[in-house]
Amino acid sequence: MDSNDRLIILSERIKTFCSEREWSQFHDPKNLAISLQLEASEVLELFQWTKDNQVKSGKEASISEEVADVFYWLLMLANHYNIDLVEALNSKMDINEIKYPVNKSKGVSTKYTDL
Amino acid sequence: MDSNDRLIILSERIKTFCSEREWSQFHDPKNLAISLQLEASEVLELFQWTKDNQVKSGKEASISEEVADVFYWLLMLANHYNIDLVEALNSKMDINEIKYPVNKSKGVSTKYTDL
Amino acid sequence: MDSNDRLIILSERIKTFCSEREWSQFHDPKNLAISLQLEASEVLELFQWTKDNQVKSGKEASISEEVADVFYWLLMLANHYNIDLVEALNSKMDINEIKYPVNKSKGVSTKYTDL
Amino acid sequence: MDSNDRLIILSERIKTFCSEREWSQFHDPKNLAISLQLEASEVLELFQWTKDNQVKSGKEASISEEVADVFYWLLMLANHYNIDLVEALNSKMDINEIKYPVNKSKGVSTKYTDL
Repeated sequence: MDSNDRLIILSERIKTFCSEREWSQFHDPKNLAISLQLEASEVLELFQWTKDNQVKSGKEASISEEVADVFYWLLMLANHYNIDLVEALNSKMDINEIKYPVNKSKGVSTKYTDL
Repeated sequence: MDSNDRLIILSERIKTFCSEREWSQFHDPKNLAISLQLEASEVLELFQWTKDNQVKSGKEASISEEVADVFYWLLMLANHYNIDLVEALNSKMDINEIKYPVNKSKGVSTKYTDL
Repeated sequence: MDSNDRLIILSERIKTFCSEREWSQFHDPKNLAISLQLEASEVLELFQWTKDNQVKSGKEASISEEVADVFYWLLMLANHYNIDLVEALNSKMDINEIKYPVNKSKGVSTKYTDL
Repeated sequence: MDSNDRLIILSERIKTFCSEREWSQFHDPKNLAISLQLEASEVLELFQWTKDNQVKSGKEASISEEVADVFYWLLMLANHYNIDLVEALNSKMDINEIKYPVNKSKGVSTKYTDL
């Protein structure tokens, strides 16, 4: 099965999961955005207090699960607004390639507004 | 072009974008997780102070861009750990379908630990 | 005992707590800022999925504890930079009173940049 | 003036600032918690991409202002729930001193649940 199908099937699976549980009543976009933020924090928590900037020892297995949780809420928001995530990010990359010209941004982490 | 290809091409585009700018030196996973968190907050900011739980008036066009920014850092983290986002979320959905049985979770937003 | 003393005593108590446990080695400001963010998310989590914008039913007792956790990391950061929180916020209020003139901001939640 | 007075005066100043602008209509606790989270993210942003875990070069002056913003929303939440921040944190410290005994937690950043 190709990935387009995989993403569509996954999206449909999530919609069915929610509708079977009658959860759409909770899923206004503000609450989706809160959940997205909370799951992003759980990813960050895996790195809390680390000195080597790697996942905390013993938590390596959790990263895949936490990243998936963020993806879940991101897809929920994307579904709500009929956003195609791949298209949206490709548009963003078009902009980023202009905002961050190679010659100015090579080897520096400066924000484009300060370039 | 199918979506699998689209996702792979997008992933490769991002890798090229970063390597051309020699940014991998900044991209340890802790800093990626911080950026993911910061972009999730920018999504949330679009809903700040709203009473109707919709995007702030005049900011509707920003939601697609902000959601794309979250997706960017999520893909960066997934790439770093060789995580297939679709697979990871499908595994999570397998778990969620068990954690939240339809008969117990229908119409309630209770966390599985409190069901 | 007056509150100045209370705040100083609390600050000293926290410093002693950390130095007895030899935790200053972990407490670079970036890690303090991450912890501040994570605790702010725990406050937000108390409101996840609520429709009435109040703390989740059964979690009312947690708000004081979670707010205290945020205050802990805020004091840690303030201590690190020798910031007097009360002074810093008074300076901010001086600015806010100019940024948000009563006649322009009465009854509207618009950010000063859009006033 | 002693600090107790300073904190009370600051608290009253904020209440007056908001009531003059008729902002209490926006200030349900869920929106306060969102704002607290967003300001905590702005503190974290000062450390984005840094390798030395210090505030980004050129942004040193911002830390006091951003920390003050977090304190603002923390006081707003505390006011809403009639929480005395100093008392709440002292209670928390009573608990922390038990959760993290010196002999077990000296020199380690392990969470109490894993001690």
